[in-house]
This record gives sequence, C-alpha cells and structure tokens, in this order.
Amino acid sequence: MSALPRAAVIATGDELVVGRTLDTNSAAIARRLSAAGYEPASFLVLGDDEDGLAEALQRLARDHDAIVVTGGLGPTLDDVTRHAAARAANVELATDERVLAELQALFATRNRPFLPANARQALFPRGADVLANPHGTAPGFHLLLGRARVFALPGPPREMLPMLEKDVLPRLARRDGVASAQRFVHLFGLPESALAEALGSAMRRDANPLVGVTAKDGVLTVVVRALDASAPAAEERAEAAAREFEARFAEYAFSRTEPDLARVLGAELLARSARVTVAESCTGGLLAGRLTSVPGISAVFERGWIVYANEAKSAELGVEPGMLARHGAVSSEVAAALALGAARKAGARLSLAVTGIAGPGGGTAEKPAALVWFGVALDGGVTTTERRFVVRERELVRAFAVNTALDLGRRALLGSAG
Amino acid sequence: MSALPRAAVIATGDELVVGRTLDTNSAAIARRLSAAGYEPASFLVLGDDEDGLAEALQRLARDHDAIVVTGGLGPTLDDVTRHAAARAANVELATDERVLAELQALFATRNRPFLPANARQALFPRGADVLANPHGTAPGFHLLLGRARVFALPGPPREMLPMLEKDVLPRLARRDGVASAQRFVHLFGLPESALAEALGSAMRRDANPLVGVTAKDGVLTVVVRALDASAPAAEERAEAAAREFEARFAEYAFSRTEPDLARVLGAELLARSARVTVAESCTGGLLAGRLTSVPGISAVFERGWIVYANEAKSAELGVEPGMLARHGAVSSEVAAALALGAARKAGARLSLAVTGIAGPGGGTAEKPAALVWFGVALDGGVTTTERRFVVRERELVRAFAVNTALDLGRRALLGSAG
Repeated sequence: MSALPRAAVIATGDELVVGRTLDTNSAAIARRLSAAGYEPASFLVLGDDEDGLAEALQRLARDHDAIVVTGGLGPTLDDVTRHAAARAANVELATDERVLAELQALFATRNRPFLPANARQALFPRGADVLANPHGTAPGFHLLLGRARVFALPGPPREMLPMLEKDVLPRLARRDGVASAQRFVHLFGLPESALAEALGSAMRRDANPLVGVTAKDGVLTVVVRALDASAPAAEERAEAAAREFEARFAEYAFSRTEPDLARVLGAELLARSARVTVAESCTGGLLAGRLTSVPGISAVFERGWIVYANEAKSAELGVEPGMLARHGAVSSEVAAALALGAARKAGARLSLAVTGIAGPGGGTAEKPAALVWFGVALDGGVTTTERRFVVRERELVRAFAVNTALDLGRRALLGSAG
Repeated sequence: MSALPRAAVIATGDELVVGRTLDTNSAAIARRLSAAGYEPASFLVLGDDEDGLAEALQRLARDHDAIVVTGGLGPTLDDVTRHAAARAANVELATDERVLAELQALFATRNRPFLPANARQALFPRGADVLANPHGTAPGFHLLLGRARVFALPGPPREMLPMLEKDVLPRLARRDGVASAQRFVHLFGLPESALAEALGSAMRRDANPLVGVTAKDGVLTVVVRALDASAPAAEERAEAAAREFEARFAEYAFSRTEPDLARVLGAELLARSARVTVAESCTGGLLAGRLTSVPGISAVFERGWIVYANEAKSAELGVEPGMLARHGAVSSEVAAALALGAARKAGARLSLAVTGIAGPGGGTAEKPAALVWFGVALDGGVTTTERRFVVRERELVRAFAVNTALDLGRRALLGSAG
C-alpha cells in the first residue's frame, strides 16, 4: 500500500492571525481529508495578505496533492483569495457572467442595491471551475496548480462545510488502490476520558481501523476509519468495527448517522405524531430553540414556556407556591410539577422540564452551580433525573442541560409502548 | 516609521494536523505578540515531523523577527522539536547537566523510575538558553536563527502560557520606537458590503490606521489598528479614528466594547430595572435563550412564551383567531398583538415578538422564506418592523432575527423617556 497523498489546509483572515478568532475550519477539513485517504501535512493561517497567500500556494503546490483554502471570498478589498490564486497560477481574473447575473438577481429579490464591491464575488481566476455556494453569496472555485488541486471555499463554516462535502471530497476521491471508508457512532452520557480509556490502542495513529473521538456539549462522536485495498473491503472493515463498537456501548449510542439529539428526538416524535412541549427555567428557551431547529417540527410542537422566576412557574404552569418554598425551584418535585403542568396545558404526550443552577453564581453547598433537575412527563406519568455537570462555564452547563433533556426525552419515548 | 516586526507561530503534533485536537495555543500567542507590538504574520501547524519543522524554521527565519514553537518537547520519539531546531541552526544537541539532575531529582521525589527516554528532555541545541518549566517536566529553550529569535515551548497551555509571559515576552520587548494600538466599534443593521464600500481605502493593508471588518449573524465588528512612534501616540491615533468612525456610522454603532447585543440590551434593562418578556414564533426560544445568557438577567426577566402554532398564539397570548385568519401569522398585526399580549401577561415594560418564515420551506410569492415581522411593545405602545433577510439558511435566518429583535428592543428603550 503506497504512502498517502499529501494535503495542506490554508485559512486566511486578519482576525485569525491576530488571534481574535479561532480557526476551526482547518481541523474540520483535515478530519475529512484524512478520512478520504489523504495525509494532512500542514495547516497555514495567514492574514488578508495577497502576496503571502500567492507565495504559499506556489510553494505548497510543489509537494502537495490537494490544497484547501478558506476565507477571503467576500466582497471587500481585504478579500484577496481570488487575486492570490490567479497570481499563483499566473492567469488573469475574469468575471463569470452567470454568477454575476445570479448575484444581481438575488439582490433584486431582496430589494438591496447591488454595489460595485459585490461584483468582486463574480471574479475568478481564468480556467477555474466555479463551486456554487447554496448558503451564501460567495461562490468558491477549483483550479489546478501544477499537480496540486486547489480549492477555495468561503470562511463561514455553515457555507464552507456543505461545499466541502459536495464539491471538494468527490473531486479528491482516490483511484490508486488504497481505499478508505469511515463510519460514525454518536453517543451521549459517557465521559470522554472513560471512552478513551476503553478504546486504548485503537486510537493510535497507525491502527487500522483507526478510532477517533470528538466531543461537543456532551455528545461524543466516534469516527471509525479503515483502509483497505478496495473500496468494498474498506467499507466492510469500517462497518464491522463500527457495529462492534456500537454493540459494546449500546447503552450510550443513539445514532449512526445523526449527531444532533434534537433531530433524533424530533424524528421519533414525528414518526409517532406525538406532541411535545417544554418548561424551561435555567435553559431559558434554548431547549425549545433546539427542537424548533428541526424541519417539520411544527407538526408536533405548538408551544412552550420559559418560566425563569418562581412566580412564573406558579402562574403559568400551576406549580404550588408551597412546593417551591419547601423544596426550592431546583428540586425533583418542582421538575415533576413543571413537566406535568406544561404537558397538561399544551395537551402534549411528552413534556420536558429543566430547572437548575447555570452558575457561575447562585449555588450553595447543598445545591451547587451546575446542579440541574430534569422532569420528563410522558402519557400522564412523570420521572425526574438529577445531574451535576462537571463543566463549570454558564453557557456550557446550559448546553449540556439541553442535550440531557433531549436524551431523556428520547429514552422515555423509546421505552414507551407507542 | 518602520513597519512592525514580524512574528510566526508554529504548533506541532499529529493530533493537531489530523484535526483531532484544536490548536488554541497559536491564537493565544498571537494575541500577546500583537499586543507587544509584533505583527503575527502566519501560523503553521505541523505533525510530529522533524524534516518539516527544520525546513519551516529555516524558511521563516529569513523574514521573521520572532518564531514561537509549541509542542514536541516531551520524552518520546515523536517529540522532535529539539532535533529540528538543532538541524535548522546547524548545531549539535548537548545534554544540560543541571536540567538532567533536576529531572532525576523530580522523578525520585515522585517515586517514578527515570527511564532513558526521560533524558531526552535534558537535550538542547548547543548555544540555546534553557527556559524553565515550573508546571511540567519539559523545559523550553531560546536560540537565534539568523535575525530571528526562536522560542520552543511545551504544548499544554497551562505549562506554555506562564513561560510565554515570564520568558518570551520580556525577551521580545521592543526598543525601536514603533507601537501599535487597537479599538473596536460594533454595528448592527448595515450590510457588510455597504460598510466596505463606505470605508474604501482605509481597508487596504498599508493604511494607518488600518480598518478591518468581521461579521457574525448581522453584527459587524470594525477593528481600527494604528501604528505610531510611541504607545500613547498610537493609542491616541486609534482612538481618534474609532471615534470618527463611530460618529460616521452612529445610526448603526451600538457599542465600543461589547459585541453581544443581548448583553447590551440586558445592561440597559438592568440599569432601568425594566422588566422584559418575549413572544417567539419562528425563533422558537432562541431570543429568550440569548437574553438568559446575560448574568443577572433574572432581575428583569421572569417569563416568556414560545407560540409556534396559531392556536397557541390565541390561547396563550390572546391573539384573535379572526386576525390570524385575515392577515396570517406572519404579519404586522399579529406581531403587534403578540408583543402586547406578552407584555400584559408578564407585566413587562418591554416585550419583543418575532413571527416569520425561517424557511427553507413555507414561503409564498407574497411572503417568501426569510420574511420576518417584529413587534416591540414598550410602556403600552407598540411598533412593528418587517425584515426580509438576504441569508437563506434556516438557522441563519433565525440568528439574524434574534439579533434584529434585540437591536429593535435596544433602540426602543434608548428612544424612550425613562
């Protein structure tokens, strides 16, 4: 099996190189290039520097097979990627009339003036393929620089990632007798260190299949990557390893394809036509915000309550003031009462309540910051769960609490009869 | 006046270059180098690659004044920074007997065997200064490579950052009479391209002051950076430019210090002890989620409603079914009724309502996706505002809508009597 082809990733932007914004694109791209059978050999972060970018492209093109550049495709003078790529390739910039017309039409639809600066986004190095950007106004492009395939993509991850999947990775598919395949397993409720301990040598760089783990707000995503002599052999090897892994961690694994617990719960609710509602204290609307990110959720989600103050918990959802006084708002009793009150008022089959101390202030010895109680009402019954999160930062506590509520709802629904 | 001296930052580690771990060291170092009067010109991320690192050091030393390398100082064979630096400088590696004795003593204290591999950590390029590491076993070092000062520091941030402060920044203190200063202005409601058009040549890289722009969910952050012969002169120049800029875009500028509109609105509400509430349709809880991210907001935020379905708008907030039938849920009339209904029920001075079509589906020719109506009730009165966002992705439409609601609330409060 031959050595892997080499890839480089370049991120551009003054805000990156002065350290004001963290470049997360390069790591995301490297993971996917790595999964596609490339060796990510280096990242380079540059300011909005046409000379520096042109020089780097020429230098990297000498001993790399693929170069992905992010950023610098906006309409302003500090957006220099087109100009730098044209210089590196020693070609002119030319306006793509189709892109120009599309941009003008888009601006017309939105009743916004089309300024001369906007026309910059229709300029491309001559000979480059235009890569459409379905989520923004900045198209990307693809050109050959010696043996290196160069891809220029916009900087915002929401625009960049779909283009990476749709336009870049298929063009980089390997044809030389080394195939790679990857599988995912998404888990919730297991600490990352416990997973790493359990995986052991499967996480070494030379393991095949190789297992990697990423974590976000409590969701662990395990990537299983296998290399083999043919695509079917690599697929089979990756699939077998992923299945074994999923069986071993069945208690925590919630999906092979979907890392978003809101979408996983949403799909279960929609499949059952089961109405859902929320009663949020410390998460303050974020749980409903996640549920309503699911396309089509309006078929099962009609309303929800943010009951931040005690008086709101009583007035809106009928929690008895005496119960609040006896047990405090952050308690099993109040979590149950909130879930039942919201379920009744919304006529919902499933109701998720969250009441906790997001911190950093507001905690006591008995009820410290990051203590959260969850209430899950289903078909009239209710269960409560306590979590004390290890994370301490306010927004992280809230994000973990939202995922915990979604996961508890998912488990309740899967454990129910209908 | 000369340009700023140039600095480069290198991070090494296989886990970084395959995207498994995010390099946060380089941005932290760049911020401090920038504050110390250096221009961070590039970051480079490499695997544990001795050849690659030696080559990069030699190349960067030609046109940089300072190079900071993190990682690769551990005891194992994949820790190659010492060897690469020695090769780049064309010197031998030599054992520092004092460091070796200290390491052996440390291991004895901890009752850990001192293995041959551990002696690697006492090796340094001949002629380098050793930099003590008070928080770990890997000392760093400092050497000259041509005109470039090279600093090698360990990778773990809790070891690296104290060494950066104590050993690197004092050695890089400037004595040549060029200082830099920066100021920020945060704006909302102005398209990025219109701002760029208005700024023109101030965004060219050689401008002084130099103006840069970053955008997130409709918030534009303008960074003004000025160079001058002394720190006070640079501060004065940056401040004057920022003030001029703020005055010119007074209609859109909302803060010099705080880019988060929720915190800006939250501070105004808290200063007035003005109670606030929300009625959210398409934003589905995200507006309340942003408001409740503000520390201390519970003093003025007690409750809010997510009224996704028409029936919920009527049942919870008293919007007349006839109005919904006549005008549709996405209308000025319903936005006003939602804001007033929530204000009344919550006893709030300010009430923010959002009703729109987040898309991508659900739009019509007359009411396309990304059309959103806002209602702002203040002290019993109400105003409504229509926005048609240029962004098309569902979550971006919702993020823009949240910021628009926060900005409209801020403007209403500032325009009011009390």
